[in-house]
Amino acid sequence: MFFSKLLIPTLREFPSDADMISAKLMIKSGMIRKLASGIYEFLPLGLKVLRKIENIIRHEMSVIGGQEIVLPLVFPKSLWIETGRWDVYGKELFRLKDRKCVEFCLAPTAEEVIVDLVRKDVKSYRQLPIMLYQFGTKFRDEIRPRFGVMRSREFLMKDAYSFHVDELDLKKYYQIMFDAYKNIFVKCGLKFCVVESASGPIGGSLSHEFMILADNGETEVVWCKCGYSATSEKAECLRVEGCKGELYTMEEIFTPNTGGAIEDVVKFLGLSPRKLVKTLIYVADGNPVAVLVRGDHEVNETKLQTLLKVNEIILADEQTVTSIINTPIDFAGPVGLRNINVIADLSVVEILNAISGANKKDYHVKNINYKRDYDVNIVADIRKVVSGEICPRCKEEELKFLRGIEIGHIFKLNTRYSKPMNATYLDSRGKENFIFMGCYGLGVTRIVAAAIEQSHDDSGIIWPDNITPFEVLIVPLDYYDDRTKEVTEKIYRELSSKGLDVLVDDRDERPGVKFKDADLIGIPYRITIGKKNLTDGNVEFKTRRDSKSNVKLLKPEEVISRVFKIFKK
Amino acid sequence: MFFSKLLIPTLREFPSDADMISAKLMIKSGMIRKLASGIYEFLPLGLKVLRKIENIIRHEMSVIGGQEIVLPLVFPKSLWIETGRWDVYGKELFRLKDRKCVEFCLAPTAEEVIVDLVRKDVKSYRQLPIMLYQFGTKFRDEIRPRFGVMRSREFLMKDAYSFHVDELDLKKYYQIMFDAYKNIFVKCGLKFCVVESASGPIGGSLSHEFMILADNGETEVVWCKCGYSATSEKAECLRVEGCKGELYTMEEIFTPNTGGAIEDVVKFLGLSPRKLVKTLIYVADGNPVAVLVRGDHEVNETKLQTLLKVNEIILADEQTVTSIINTPIDFAGPVGLRNINVIADLSVVEILNAISGANKKDYHVKNINYKRDYDVNIVADIRKVVSGEICPRCKEEELKFLRGIEIGHIFKLNTRYSKPMNATYLDSRGKENFIFMGCYGLGVTRIVAAAIEQSHDDSGIIWPDNITPFEVLIVPLDYYDDRTKEVTEKIYRELSSKGLDVLVDDRDERPGVKFKDADLIGIPYRITIGKKNLTDGNVEFKTRRDSKSNVKLLKPEEVISRVFKIFKK
Repeated sequence: MFFSKLLIPTLREFPSDADMISAKLMIKSGMIRKLASGIYEFLPLGLKVLRKIENIIRHEMSVIGGQEIVLPLVFPKSLWIETGRWDVYGKELFRLKDRKCVEFCLAPTAEEVIVDLVRKDVKSYRQLPIMLYQFGTKFRDEIRPRFGVMRSREFLMKDAYSFHVDELDLKKYYQIMFDAYKNIFVKCGLKFCVVESASGPIGGSLSHEFMILADNGETEVVWCKCGYSATSEKAECLRVEGCKGELYTMEEIFTPNTGGAIEDVVKFLGLSPRKLVKTLIYVADGNPVAVLVRGDHEVNETKLQTLLKVNEIILADEQTVTSIINTPIDFAGPVGLRNINVIADLSVVEILNAISGANKKDYHVKNINYKRDYDVNIVADIRKVVSGEICPRCKEEELKFLRGIEIGHIFKLNTRYSKPMNATYLDSRGKENFIFMGCYGLGVTRIVAAAIEQSHDDSGIIWPDNITPFEVLIVPLDYYDDRTKEVTEKIYRELSSKGLDVLVDDRDERPGVKFKDADLIGIPYRITIGKKNLTDGNVEFKTRRDSKSNVKLLKPEEVISRVFKIFKK
Repeated sequence: MFFSKLLIPTLREFPSDADMISAKLMIKSGMIRKLASGIYEFLPLGLKVLRKIENIIRHEMSVIGGQEIVLPLVFPKSLWIETGRWDVYGKELFRLKDRKCVEFCLAPTAEEVIVDLVRKDVKSYRQLPIMLYQFGTKFRDEIRPRFGVMRSREFLMKDAYSFHVDELDLKKYYQIMFDAYKNIFVKCGLKFCVVESASGPIGGSLSHEFMILADNGETEVVWCKCGYSATSEKAECLRVEGCKGELYTMEEIFTPNTGGAIEDVVKFLGLSPRKLVKTLIYVADGNPVAVLVRGDHEVNETKLQTLLKVNEIILADEQTVTSIINTPIDFAGPVGLRNINVIADLSVVEILNAISGANKKDYHVKNINYKRDYDVNIVADIRKVVSGEICPRCKEEELKFLRGIEIGHIFKLNTRYSKPMNATYLDSRGKENFIFMGCYGLGVTRIVAAAIEQSHDDSGIIWPDNITPFEVLIVPLDYYDDRTKEVTEKIYRELSSKGLDVLVDDRDERPGVKFKDADLIGIPYRITIGKKNLTDGNVEFKTRRDSKSNVKLLKPEEVISRVFKIFKK
């Protein structure tokens, strides 16, 4: 294709409102434009990348028996009521009413709709397993859309759903999908890792996220040499036994002017925060609950929510706190706490002679010990993992923290949706059973951005070979010179004839402008054709990844066969 | 592909709630499923057809220089305010608010968004002309969704937009697109016609609709031997001069017990309705207007709306009528009508000695004549065309009425959008000009249904070769017979190797069930493989269009070469 015939509106400057290098580069290179907050248009260059990724995914989905379908984008509320997610999904769900005031939402994910389809048309074990997938626009009304198409409100997702006779069959297929996802990312030329993760509003018993590691990724990932990795939301904490020793007598201490804040209390008493029991009051689906973590730890609300099986968990406001413990929250503590369920983190109950608030203004209590001085309703892992702690899996190595971008998420849902929606099949003996289900999401638009995040330099994008919008860029320095034009078109024709996507920069622009744009849009192989080299019968060949000086002078035939070799043509 | 591995949930019966043969067949054959009123899911078989049509369209768009892009589906209200369409579009527009109460709509068409894109990135005549297109979901909250995917609320559309330096260039491109559309429909195997049509809420100066003729199509089409054709909404009426003769004296007549209804008045007076002037009061964007048509004619509200350049036109209620003419509407008439604009149809002013209401209960006036007894503000073509009248173009032949289904609509918009949105370019002398624009819509989902509407029989669908989900269906009568399986797979492999889409009905079903489904899903070529014929080394070959008895016995090699010949492989 010819540059002059394509809408590739490259910019001289970075857009002022883009906040991540991939977003900046996608706009600057004319791949996308922003229509509204978190809503983007894909221009020809951007769309070509999107389509290449789509085709890689489609191939892998088809290899593992997937059937492509297309689900609508407007979903009726009624199905979401069946699973209870109409309320759970909160403000992230775009909701609307039709002219008859019937309520709908815009697809954020399609479990309800696909289960409805399957429960109507899949009745027998003979029809199972089955995997259906689609490329569908998804809508999520993010509280803070950012990072370009990375966290946008409208995006393209490949969502797949598999249905099985039992958990074992689902488990096997989950692994097949897991491997297919790995193939996809390898083919896209991405460096990625897979981590255990929290299932969030999708639910289910097990889930994995596929992450692109990137310094400014928005997800915190915990990683261990032994192979264990998880999002920090999900990462388990090892139960470490506390010190053994003499249990001192509990006593109240006057802690005025500390205001109760942990740092101040700890300083005032000259103790380590590891000795302190921090008490927080949460409201979980409307019911207050007291949560205890060690002074140097933080509550992991995702773990807490999963433990309590609730839809919403928020810190209680002052009024609620006062109505329960009758004292400022900073002086709350487990001793004598009444009329409320208490949940303690694993590490809290191990503290010997701990300190906590006394449920009395300006007072703490010291030397409190679990079971002797206070009891709790549940002891569980409810805290955030901390850098440097020991891996919960190998119990030897220290955990490391990395940052990543989620590009895929797969879920073992079991009967999370088939039960409330009554999706059943008849087995070979005519008995009715619930269908087991998995779901598998892959952010297609997000992969575009993630690839750039992982592969760029100061001058622009560096596309991996498999997802580049064009494989080769031909830059005739003066397209209107006869000899230049002739050689340009000869190389163009030959490369195109074997199915390569070739872009010719036929614009009437200075070489400097063409090279700048070439580096910006990041086509991996560049052939430069100029009068001077042509007098020796040569053209220039360079790869985008190479340093600028690494340019080879080759005959046109040589450059063609070199490119064919690279792309195995 | 293998039937047993595909979700093709054919039904034994027609669905009870489908109202058109294409809708019934699409559901019965397992191509689609209904999720909600006017909202459908595309299953594997339906999607394959959709994709084939998409590819035919994509090819033709690319041939005429189109660049594919993807626009979002959620549009900000602000752009729609610029063109005034936020109010015009009425209830057909799905509207929603985000979590910050910013207003959006779901894309029903994308003129505003594309003009916004172009005005930001196209600045110079050097960048023109440019044609951008997409395959995008469109949403229209139809008052009465019906006919399956034919008039649904969510559907796939190919929408294209072209931008030009002037009207001449637009006009040339309009013709190029016109021809590309014809190519598309020919390639899809459709019988179609092109008609002049009304532009509706899209606007512009000229538009054509591409129609599939079908007995139960929802659009009335007017057609003349001379080549003229138009939707009945748009069809012009020929101005026919009235009788000349003596102008009698106007006189009031007492018409009690007629209630004023035309048929009754006409009967009472023993006259032709052609003598009667019918008076209607409309409210056009809030302003009342009196409209006169002949007793045997009907008002064409689309023409009236276009003439008055208003967004909304509705018949006035009784109260409004009374407040203006102070009498029941059936006794309204042009004589002495005051305080209101009056618009008369061309044919009204030609009536010699006409009759009309007297603006007085139970009275009419006779022998009224234009200019002598009453005047009007505008005389124009504002009525519906009637079967049998003379063609407005050749002025010789009689017009015929047909019914059709709109599958494409192209618009010469000129500066309808670029002016209010200030989309300009600099010409070669540095002067700023408005960009000229055309837009071109094609209902991809609708083509699927229209093709079926045009090509089916009592047993099911009969796919045209180019858009069939599979080109060949192989029906092994007993797939688990070794010899049958061997021949089946050999034929399957050979046909597939040249890129043909082949479906093998490997299900463990009776031949009767397989043949019934084969006819229902309508694959154009069927190869039946049974033990009996195989003893002579033969398989059966038949086309779906053929009568059941027309079955040929051929050797496998013969059948393969015959199929290759058909598909030019």
